[in-house]
Amino acid sequence: MESSEEQKLQVRKLELSDKSKGFIELLQQLTVCDSVSDKDFEDRFRELNARAEDHRVLVIEDARSGKIVATGSVFIERKFLRNCGKVGHIEDVVVDTNARGMQLGKKIINALTDYAHSLGCYKVILDCSVENKAFYEKCGYKQKEIQMVKYFS
Amino acid sequence: MESSEEQKLQVRKLELSDKSKGFIELLQQLTVCDSVSDKDFEDRFRELNARAEDHRVLVIEDARSGKIVATGSVFIERKFLRNCGKVGHIEDVVVDTNARGMQLGKKIINALTDYAHSLGCYKVILDCSVENKAFYEKCGYKQKEIQMVKYFS
Repeated sequence: MESSEEQKLQVRKLELSDKSKGFIELLQQLTVCDSVSDKDFEDRFRELNARAEDHRVLVIEDARSGKIVATGSVFIERKFLRNCGKVGHIEDVVVDTNARGMQLGKKIINALTDYAHSLGCYKVILDCSVENKAFYEKCGYKQKEIQMVKYFS
Repeated sequence: MESSEEQKLQVRKLELSDKSKGFIELLQQLTVCDSVSDKDFEDRFRELNARAEDHRVLVIEDARSGKIVATGSVFIERKFLRNCGKVGHIEDVVVDTNARGMQLGKKIINALTDYAHSLGCYKVILDCSVENKAFYEKCGYKQKEIQMVKYFS
């Protein structure tokens, strides 16, 4: 049975109203993320909803404060190799600096991983900094390759 | 002006008929890839075609042999961060072992990168082995993070 503390911190899908619950401010803790207009947010939300099976954004709302305190996303890549296999790609995982130490990151990663597994993915991958390696190892991940990047702006 | 040699090795989109031109056998040089039935190939091809803007598979056919000698794919991730930005993810790049030394890998990477750029992506990322790092550096990529993976099978 879950403790009442845990019941106040459930993982669920992103909702349109989460913009007013600090979702963008949470992403700003992760990286460059200017404020987004309501229109842009809604457009992107609907674009992703049209791809709902292939792209899932999960959040944890703190029922006490009504604020989004953790998020992460996974999208499903369809390949030809591995017998036309599928791969989950986890992106944009962040836990509010004020909500650390409650295993919310692990909760999000587990939920994203389980989702990809339930869709028949043969693996899930993600890129992270060397500093975050130990955290992902605790979630059952292992280091494999290196990430290369090319920026246009 | 292109040499006639180069004209015989043009980058183009994957076509349904490429299965009979050695596309799957080429992927088998990369990783585990059992033979795929015509039906499974066609189903996956049509699934990806329905996402044509978000997922592009490019190939190089050698016009002399009628064989696919290089391939790579890129899919476009839509984010909320970076002002609802987009990121290109390059996957499944392989050049036929008998067609090395003709810069076909670079040609494929450049075409995938340009495609992502043309769609407004602010960056393109890919994962590779340490051994392939120098190749991607020649294509303008830089090492950034590490890749973590969890396998289900």
